[in-house]
Amino acid sequence: MQNFSVILYNHFESLDVFGPVEVIGKLDKFFAIEYYSEKGGIIQSSQNTKIETRPLKDLIDPGILLIPGGFGARVEVNNANFIDAIKELSIRADVVLTVCTGSALLAKTGLLNNIQATTNKISYDWVVNQNDEVCWIRKARWTHDAKYYTSSGVSAGIDMTLGFISDRMSPEIAERVASGIEYLWNRDKENDPFC
Amino acid sequence: MQNFSVILYNHFESLDVFGPVEVIGKLDKFFAIEYYSEKGGIIQSSQNTKIETRPLKDLIDPGILLIPGGFGARVEVNNANFIDAIKELSIRADVVLTVCTGSALLAKTGLLNNIQATTNKISYDWVVNQNDEVCWIRKARWTHDAKYYTSSGVSAGIDMTLGFISDRMSPEIAERVASGIEYLWNRDKENDPFC
Repeated sequence: MQNFSVILYNHFESLDVFGPVEVIGKLDKFFAIEYYSEKGGIIQSSQNTKIETRPLKDLIDPGILLIPGGFGARVEVNNANFIDAIKELSIRADVVLTVCTGSALLAKTGLLNNIQATTNKISYDWVVNQNDEVCWIRKARWTHDAKYYTSSGVSAGIDMTLGFISDRMSPEIAERVASGIEYLWNRDKENDPFC
Repeated sequence: MQNFSVILYNHFESLDVFGPVEVIGKLDKFFAIEYYSEKGGIIQSSQNTKIETRPLKDLIDPGILLIPGGFGARVEVNNANFIDAIKELSIRADVVLTVCTGSALLAKTGLLNNIQATTNKISYDWVVNQNDEVCWIRKARWTHDAKYYTSSGVSAGIDMTLGFISDRMSPEIAERVASGIEYLWNRDKENDPFC
């Protein structure tokens, strides 16, 4: 059993989190999902959902780390304490997954320098401006380089997480999960229909 | 501005809620999202998310009602007070959307009698057994009959909600929302690749 640690902040984007979490939740014999935020307590999404979280100081063993995007990321890139915490957790994590503008937060840590990464289309220029030492790739449904997976916008997080399961476990298990949630998986990380 | 009222219960399925909510949240000039449960307070999804909800008694104007599925639906079909509340709210609602086994809860109210409806594939026989007076359709990505929209499993809720937006507002607005969340919309409610 491995921890799957979701990092939330105010005005995160719902599907950035609950797409990947839906995939991982189908494999609950292998992954234990927990939700964290910088200081713990209630965090509110851009879709008005209020979610209980644990404080980051309680996150001893991050395992797999999920960093979503959302309008809140535009505030959090300037929160030095939060970026430091993400850096420290990402170093300790086995794998780090980002969705949409979540890659801007990870880029701010410097850990993506010289690493291939992507982000969504609408905020592409803003994200790239956060750190020009990252090997940003505009046309990618998702990227996988070293221990970092980064996806394009919102729904792409589902395809990326299935891709991670395919790499980590097997393509057959990823297919079975996709079929169970009646999702047509875009299996090719270079097939980006929105670029 | 119309209310978009999400009905939660313990062990609901995350993506059944946060797929549709992602679509509706992109139209926040038109819809106000709120989360309710029978008695209010914290509700826990099957993916370990703890969400704050308001009690159903506070739901004066349901507007659009969303009823998700999940393993908890197998408990709630036998909760007569909850089914009565769903019936009363559905009668007052402008439109009712169900995802996955959420249609079993709505079927229990009797409001789907002689109405076309669908559900997911894995639990199809269980759902159909809840009420055989519903015109159940196995092969459908989603259905729309009278004021009721019902979708197949989990991810199909995203396609259905885009279909609802297409009917209610315009196909162009639905396309724009789908593109904004980088989602390949299955526009044809009869195209069910999982049947």
